[in-house]
Amino acid sequence: MKTIKHVDVKKRMYVNDLVKEMSQSGVFGAGRIAKAADIIEDMFKDKECKVFLGIAGAMVPGGMKNIIIDMLNSRYIDAIVTTGATLTHDLAEALGYKHYIGTAHADDSELHRKGFDRMYDSYMPNKVYESLEKFFNSILENMHKKINIKEFLWYIGKHVKSKDSILRVCYEKQIPIFCPGIADSGIGLMIWGNLVKGKKIDVNVFDDLKEIIDIAWTAKKRGFIYIGGGVPKNYIQQAMQFSKEGADYGVQITTDMPEYGGSSGAELREGISWGKLKENAKFVDVYCDATIALPLIYAAVKDRLKWF
Amino acid sequence: MKTIKHVDVKKRMYVNDLVKEMSQSGVFGAGRIAKAADIIEDMFKDKECKVFLGIAGAMVPGGMKNIIIDMLNSRYIDAIVTTGATLTHDLAEALGYKHYIGTAHADDSELHRKGFDRMYDSYMPNKVYESLEKFFNSILENMHKKINIKEFLWYIGKHVKSKDSILRVCYEKQIPIFCPGIADSGIGLMIWGNLVKGKKIDVNVFDDLKEIIDIAWTAKKRGFIYIGGGVPKNYIQQAMQFSKEGADYGVQITTDMPEYGGSSGAELREGISWGKLKENAKFVDVYCDATIALPLIYAAVKDRLKWF
Amino acid sequence: MKTIKHVDVKKRMYVNDLVKEMSQSGVFGAGRIAKAADIIEDMFKDKECKVFLGIAGAMVPGGMKNIIIDMLNSRYIDAIVTTGATLTHDLAEALGYKHYIGTAHADDSELHRKGFDRMYDSYMPNKVYESLEKFFNSILENMHKKINIKEFLWYIGKHVKSKDSILRVCYEKQIPIFCPGIADSGIGLMIWGNLVKGKKIDVNVFDDLKEIIDIAWTAKKRGFIYIGGGVPKNYIQQAMQFSKEGADYGVQITTDMPEYGGSSGAELREGISWGKLKENAKFVDVYCDATIALPLIYAAVKDRLKWF
Amino acid sequence: MKTIKHVDVKKRMYVNDLVKEMSQSGVFGAGRIAKAADIIEDMFKDKECKVFLGIAGAMVPGGMKNIIIDMLNSRYIDAIVTTGATLTHDLAEALGYKHYIGTAHADDSELHRKGFDRMYDSYMPNKVYESLEKFFNSILENMHKKINIKEFLWYIGKHVKSKDSILRVCYEKQIPIFCPGIADSGIGLMIWGNLVKGKKIDVNVFDDLKEIIDIAWTAKKRGFIYIGGGVPKNYIQQAMQFSKEGADYGVQITTDMPEYGGSSGAELREGISWGKLKENAKFVDVYCDATIALPLIYAAVKDRLKWF
Repeated sequence: MKTIKHVDVKKRMYVNDLVKEMSQSGVFGAGRIAKAADIIEDMFKDKECKVFLGIAGAMVPGGMKNIIIDMLNSRYIDAIVTTGATLTHDLAEALGYKHYIGTAHADDSELHRKGFDRMYDSYMPNKVYESLEKFFNSILENMHKKINIKEFLWYIGKHVKSKDSILRVCYEKQIPIFCPGIADSGIGLMIWGNLVKGKKIDVNVFDDLKEIIDIAWTAKKRGFIYIGGGVPKNYIQQAMQFSKEGADYGVQITTDMPEYGGSSGAELREGISWGKLKENAKFVDVYCDATIALPLIYAAVKDRLKWF
Repeated sequence: MKTIKHVDVKKRMYVNDLVKEMSQSGVFGAGRIAKAADIIEDMFKDKECKVFLGIAGAMVPGGMKNIIIDMLNSRYIDAIVTTGATLTHDLAEALGYKHYIGTAHADDSELHRKGFDRMYDSYMPNKVYESLEKFFNSILENMHKKINIKEFLWYIGKHVKSKDSILRVCYEKQIPIFCPGIADSGIGLMIWGNLVKGKKIDVNVFDDLKEIIDIAWTAKKRGFIYIGGGVPKNYIQQAMQFSKEGADYGVQITTDMPEYGGSSGAELREGISWGKLKENAKFVDVYCDATIALPLIYAAVKDRLKWF
Repeated sequence: MKTIKHVDVKKRMYVNDLVKEMSQSGVFGAGRIAKAADIIEDMFKDKECKVFLGIAGAMVPGGMKNIIIDMLNSRYIDAIVTTGATLTHDLAEALGYKHYIGTAHADDSELHRKGFDRMYDSYMPNKVYESLEKFFNSILENMHKKINIKEFLWYIGKHVKSKDSILRVCYEKQIPIFCPGIADSGIGLMIWGNLVKGKKIDVNVFDDLKEIIDIAWTAKKRGFIYIGGGVPKNYIQQAMQFSKEGADYGVQITTDMPEYGGSSGAELREGISWGKLKENAKFVDVYCDATIALPLIYAAVKDRLKWF
Repeated sequence: MKTIKHVDVKKRMYVNDLVKEMSQSGVFGAGRIAKAADIIEDMFKDKECKVFLGIAGAMVPGGMKNIIIDMLNSRYIDAIVTTGATLTHDLAEALGYKHYIGTAHADDSELHRKGFDRMYDSYMPNKVYESLEKFFNSILENMHKKINIKEFLWYIGKHVKSKDSILRVCYEKQIPIFCPGIADSGIGLMIWGNLVKGKKIDVNVFDDLKEIIDIAWTAKKRGFIYIGGGVPKNYIQQAMQFSKEGADYGVQITTDMPEYGGSSGAELREGISWGKLKENAKFVDVYCDATIALPLIYAAVKDRLKWF
């Protein structure tokens, strides 16, 4: 057995060196942070491995957008699955809006009167919906009537001017982006607004399943990174299940706990029983707020890879 | 201020009387359980109120199916939103399969070899997928090619024989059932299998948004019950937001915490800032495993209402 | 393997019948609630078993005092370990004060000015400290100078008039009560006030260790019930470790999770490695707010035992 | 309102620069990590401020010992309160034992046979108890019979050879160290063993309350850092309450949540109602595994202060 070496903190310490200290201690949350960095390094370096990134939780209002975009630009990500809310927040910022540092102990009635929507201690100006409406009215006119969700998201990305956008980068780099629950979002509401006005918009909910499963199926190896659970995690999990042998690498960062039985908090090893994860896969569960764990892990990984 | 009266437990105590004792204590989790029972009683009794039920988490593998079906049969539920996984588990049981009491400390490799898929300490036999495939092959033949998700789910329910099925009851009672993330499920995979074989199945992801928002919009009052978070909670939340003034009653049971900023753990009061909840609404957040809180609350509510 | 039978909720349902339904479902939190009731029933019925009750968390401000007192009066409890705060709250109520139903979103500055101390959504009037001071000034005069903590707590209980008091009941029934961290409490502060005035009060911190270990050591079998973690859990755990073979029965109700590595959230099975729990012991971890789980479990157990 | 600037992660990034990026994002967990670093920097720089450090949770088995020792050596800490378990683990390592990197999915029966005590995924060899016994037999002989807990802990520290010891450093630097629950620990058991053999050891549980309250009372300003909750947090909290006006600075790192009402998860702002914290105090609650948050925060703080 390896002995636990206590974490030594030095002055002017690099993040990567701190994470390596955590690797020496090797237990509790610190040990998992270090293991996650090692596994992501391995899956990024493995040229045979297709990497799936799942993003749930309010990561854009939480200040994580640039890390996600940086990862997408790194060429290490082969597919991304996220929530409609994440894409709506991304689009709102691409249209020039900001999120604001607020407080969790706010008077929500007052915020409502002032026109701010609260996400814990992050605020979004409610008037983003007006710009979203204008944006969609302008682009839906010429959109192909028959389309699947991935094509729809790329089509949005194509019309986004700002470079600081997940949707834009996915379109530019032609990174497959999936969002089964797209109707459950501000973007969905914009489409609804147009449907109500009688516009025909026929986005097929099942069609791009072919594509995500195909990416998994045709890959020599598979790896995934889950930020949060929900649909993004589960949608990638089922692609893993239908990819012959399951994933070779897996990292999840979650604040949900396995003890309650839900999919979001489920331990990755559970996936072995489903065939979603290989018996000999490298994987780790990181139980931590993603806005803490992701920058820490990512800064360590970025130090170790030359593509960055 | 009201003084805290300590919970008195008696022999041969009715659940409703225990919950009333919790109402007297009034604080911590017990106080919230009691408040949830009172609010659900109020929203069920309020004839002007349309009730939306959101179900996330593995509630069928968790033994909660009969409570959900009983609620749907009670005529108190006007719309339900759930996950594809919940409907897949429901369908699997309708096709004659069972879930099994297992252990969280299982050897997942062994389970994989034996053909059991683990959800914490609940097991599902992997061969359900074969029956699901047969079932869908038989029903997809004659399905309308152009259809929305709600119509698709009712169509499935129409072909379910077993009475013990959420899908079947929703079809029979013509209760609108929504599942934006349907592609993210075993049901989705069955459709994918048919798409791959070249069958045309064109289910529109946005179309039934019109319907859920219409139910919210046309109602005099609105109430919701969230079991877990995820898409079901968020999808109802956005229907509330686009229903003039927001909800009048709200109860959520969750094990996610607000401190991490995600939508699943967000306090209901946050919805006031969005216009999803009225300032003067009756609402409560219950932080508890739903398999504990739901039976407790529901048994109390059932005692108080004559429709049951 | 046992199949999962879904929980059926009926009108006019007894708590015990609801818990038996949870036993049929057998998984997630519901399954653990039911298992906890079965194990407590077994340990209470087992005449060879000495039962240790550990109480942490703000159970008196949380409305659980009467259940604790009822358990102590039931003759099923052979020793109790708790926190100084619990005993301070118990004493405050015995001196005529109440706790009040407040709100977690309070203005703490305003509460401070009004003289209320907040524990989440439970309030205590700050002036309890004056009465505590009077009480201790009156009883310390004639207290033996050399005494251990258990004797000290019984001495306090002897001078409590109210029957609704944990301290009083422990004295009356001569139930050994332990509180290693007694100095960390309002009671400790009262002693400090007298020490400052030069009074000699010599309470030995180690002396009553002999007694709790002796109860464990001499018992044919051992069982424990932990409400929360902290010192009460750990102090009983170490008595189990030094009792030949460890405990035969164990139930813990906690909201701490094992994933963070702390003792409070540690799974009971971990105790097997320490020799605190027998390999073949009956035990369960209930992850739930104790103000919900305890009344539910206790009402079921009370229905099943004739001593009540 | 300040806009949220997304966290930018660069190659070869210093921990302090990453934490400053988190300060720019300012929300969710990342915002709190950054705020904690700023507040600790402020309280350390403030020459009028006495700093109290509370350590709960298995921080020595968790690899955090060197950070704690480094902090104690930094001259910024004026008093420390911890658990008996932490001091036992510290002493075990000082006597030459190690903790080992294990697994949370261990077979505890097998570990028991092999003589390893498990703390989640950290193992301790059970034979440490033999060396602890030898150590105490050798030092208790000449120990003053009448002594308080702080004097007792300094006395132990005085006889510890290893420099890598919390107990040793506290003695050397004459840093007041408090442990009200000392009887609840392996150290307590060693004393018990001697008491059983008839040795007279009279350690007063209340006596050193005078000292911790005196440090708080005589300080111009007060600050605290809580790693975990339990007795260490609560014991410092009550010293704050009896120090005229409460604390000026406060940081807590915890994985307990306020929603359950216990002291360990209580928000610091709650302390304002008690008079434990000033209305205008600088404080923050960090909801994170301490083995992740502490190294991250401490590395940033260490970069900013010249004493290090």
